[in-house]
Amino acid sequence: MYRLKLIFILPCLFLFSNIQAQNYIGKKKDINKILKNIEQFSAFYVAGDIESLVDSYTLDGKIFPSRTKIIEGKEKLLEFWTPRNGNKTIRHKVTPSELKIVKKTAYDYGYYEGTSQNAKGEKFEFSGKYVIVWKKIKGEWKIYLDIWNRID
Amino acid sequence: MYRLKLIFILPCLFLFSNIQAQNYIGKKKDINKILKNIEQFSAFYVAGDIESLVDSYTLDGKIFPSRTKIIEGKEKLLEFWTPRNGNKTIRHKVTPSELKIVKKTAYDYGYYEGTSQNAKGEKFEFSGKYVIVWKKIKGEWKIYLDIWNRID
Repeated sequence: MYRLKLIFILPCLFLFSNIQAQNYIGKKKDINKILKNIEQFSAFYVAGDIESLVDSYTLDGKIFPSRTKIIEGKEKLLEFWTPRNGNKTIRHKVTPSELKIVKKTAYDYGYYEGTSQNAKGEKFEFSGKYVIVWKKIKGEWKIYLDIWNRID
Repeated sequence: MYRLKLIFILPCLFLFSNIQAQNYIGKKKDINKILKNIEQFSAFYVAGDIESLVDSYTLDGKIFPSRTKIIEGKEKLLEFWTPRNGNKTIRHKVTPSELKIVKKTAYDYGYYEGTSQNAKGEKFEFSGKYVIVWKKIKGEWKIYLDIWNRID
């Protein structure tokens, strides 16, 4: 019985490690740093810590929200990400489909989703897809380009 | 008079060459190939040569249009880019703000604009911004990730 289980589990483990290898390409240390930054971005957003969220970007980091030109510069990023009119994001989750590191540049793409809540307490689900270009600045991975759009 | 002109022209040339150097980073040969591909993409689109347009992507190239999931695969890309209901794009222009090559990967971002025309002959202007991740496959630069959204 124990042996039978191993016969099933081992190929699954092998398959999983291959899928990982395809989707996260680069040194494990760098991959883990970026994955942690992706998680922290969401945590900062939900906590309302917009200063830390904007610090996730390079000083010349650029965001590409719908219906505006490209936005650049710490002040403008703070303004964009700061919630208005009593709205807040109570859930935010980013799921990278692929992450690849090439020297001191990296890209990842995938899906994001979350829940926002307005001043009346009404909740709204949102979801979309994104591409991020990262740069390693003084040993830290920062977001250089951040573009996204809706799924539905 | 001749000397006076040079005094003005030389600093301008120097300024221009510096700006170029900041925005296009990589070997000139690769930069020029990608810039040509960007121009050809628009030319294919306006000519209605969707086969060649889709050939601008890697075989696993992905597009991120608004209001859908990530689209991948030659057949699906052909379907997305093929004009429908008598609509056509009669003008398409991409203006990269920055293009950087890192080994066999590159990214560029910037603005696009164009004019579409419907079956009644009515014309519509459109404009947006984009990020593209390129891959060099067998010596040719192909689009791997292509994401965009509207300005207005």
